[in-house]
Amino acid sequence: MDPYGLRRVVSPKGVLPQRADVLDPSLPLGEDEVSIAVEALNVDAASFRQIEAAAGRDPAGIADDVLRIVQARGKLHNPVTGSGGMLIGRVEAVGPRHPAAGALSPGDRIATLVSLTLTPLRIDRIRAVRPEVERVECDGRAILFATGPWARLPPDLPDTLALAALDVCGAPALAARLLRRGMRVLVLGAGKSGALVLAQARESLAGTGEAVAADRSQEALDAVERAGLCDRALRVDGTDAVGTLAAVEGAGGPFDLVVNCATVAGTEMASILSVKDGGTVLFFSMATSFTAAALGAEGVGKDAAILVGNGYVPGHADLTLGLVRRHAGLRALFEARYAAPR
Amino acid sequence: MDPYGLRRVVSPKGVLPQRADVLDPSLPLGEDEVSIAVEALNVDAASFRQIEAAAGRDPAGIADDVLRIVQARGKLHNPVTGSGGMLIGRVEAVGPRHPAAGALSPGDRIATLVSLTLTPLRIDRIRAVRPEVERVECDGRAILFATGPWARLPPDLPDTLALAALDVCGAPALAARLLRRGMRVLVLGAGKSGALVLAQARESLAGTGEAVAADRSQEALDAVERAGLCDRALRVDGTDAVGTLAAVEGAGGPFDLVVNCATVAGTEMASILSVKDGGTVLFFSMATSFTAAALGAEGVGKDAAILVGNGYVPGHADLTLGLVRRHAGLRALFEARYAAPR
Repeated sequence: MDPYGLRRVVSPKGVLPQRADVLDPSLPLGEDEVSIAVEALNVDAASFRQIEAAAGRDPAGIADDVLRIVQARGKLHNPVTGSGGMLIGRVEAVGPRHPAAGALSPGDRIATLVSLTLTPLRIDRIRAVRPEVERVECDGRAILFATGPWARLPPDLPDTLALAALDVCGAPALAARLLRRGMRVLVLGAGKSGALVLAQARESLAGTGEAVAADRSQEALDAVERAGLCDRALRVDGTDAVGTLAAVEGAGGPFDLVVNCATVAGTEMASILSVKDGGTVLFFSMATSFTAAALGAEGVGKDAAILVGNGYVPGHADLTLGLVRRHAGLRALFEARYAAPR
Repeated sequence: MDPYGLRRVVSPKGVLPQRADVLDPSLPLGEDEVSIAVEALNVDAASFRQIEAAAGRDPAGIADDVLRIVQARGKLHNPVTGSGGMLIGRVEAVGPRHPAAGALSPGDRIATLVSLTLTPLRIDRIRAVRPEVERVECDGRAILFATGPWARLPPDLPDTLALAALDVCGAPALAARLLRRGMRVLVLGAGKSGALVLAQARESLAGTGEAVAADRSQEALDAVERAGLCDRALRVDGTDAVGTLAAVEGAGGPFDLVVNCATVAGTEMASILSVKDGGTVLFFSMATSFTAAALGAEGVGKDAAILVGNGYVPGHADLTLGLVRRHAGLRALFEARYAAPR
């Protein structure tokens, strides 16, 4: 058994696959691995834009660069940006000791919810490059380890919609663990993950408490209000802690739970000042600075639990797809903003 | 009322004191403020070493530089390192609406547990510079806001010992909230905060469960073992996640609680691999990378609560000083390693 895929590491020896320079994606399949016939790679936005720029925006050049990276590294781990993406495909074989043995069968369509930076991958042929959705359609084979999260692609939702929601499915699932009836919750950042967290708050609060959306974009606030996802919208600049605090004071005072889904840096203090003593701040923003959060709370003597938004929560994919199915406004918002070709 | 000291901000307007370039430390005192007759500044190590190097290791030059920073900024906020320190002094006056009115009286000796980067400060005279303890002895006045944590200096412990413990008093206090009888706990990093967390584990576990110390320094492990603070010591390099996992597997497998007190960067994955599914990782290391923790847990499908070590927990100072008083081994370790002039 090799739950972290150490046997796939070619160099340097003794590191985890994510840290490795080169992985070995070849068969035979380990008894606790799954192999996937790849249909498409959803490349991380930062990685795709870097490759696109380096290739002079030429689709054939992009395809060559992707092939070159995967041939050299055995994974689509962009050496410049350090980022990966996710993939979709059909299950080819399921090792008898993989945790999904019994649940997954050959032919099932799945998405991997683990980064391409640690997924062993071989590409046989690139069929198409779709810059408008940062996608590379290809034939190939990927390996999933026993610890690698995955999700079955739902037959009732378009791939683009499902993938857009699955991309941030940890946020509403972790929020669901923290939400209690009667809570006042502030969601800072009304984008993709913010909208999902607001939808989860709608369900968890069930008409009690209050769910407030905050963003510096009136357009983003209008979208979540139109979708019926919040009780109130606050237009604030989260990088302005003092201004955010004033808005929060004017909207009933600090919250029981603050979920930071911002995309910009420097919103730690606004989040900490917006929570009550004894409350919880959950940081999902990848722009979060650990020291700004830790020292910020200490500096203002705030007794709040501060949580790192772990992207893996058991059942997160089903929970998130359920939200998209049950909330027509959320689905419409995703279709309009995140799931359509740009 | 102005709990965050916004009235003290001179420039730029509208930011919190920590972000400000210049604060106003002058009287009159706000009704929710405390003024302190300063005895000594315990300068942050990074800040002191930078000033010392810039002044060519000359004490008079160090004094001049400290005076210059404080005169220019109204706080000892090193513009190069961005860091501060803490101070000790005697209470001069307590505003009637400060939360400590009633608890604090003029003449009481206290230490501020809030960074000097946000503490309004005026220095009248520098009496001595003590590079061996990174301390500047001076006459001056500091202001404490309503939200600023402080601690009474205990009459039964030397200042250096009390300050060394108070410097990291949030760690054992937050660990105390998470520790339950019967738990197996791993403390990664057997330094100052690690030793305090181990002592708290001794008390919270009360002979049940297991407290394991891990460090790459045999000397640090010997010290906590000699102090009677752990059930077992593991010599591991926390930057080597795979090696740490192997050591953990050999020592009974993943833990219920992992407290990261490491001083080096790159120990996030070792911490995450060392915790059970359903367990908790508490990061106190200021070298923690938010994204390494969040994406690391997601990449290996680890369902663990990941907490940012908030340095403020109500009662943290008393809890920590109590540990030092009750554990002779801990006290001896602190006296030998952290409280003595080097």
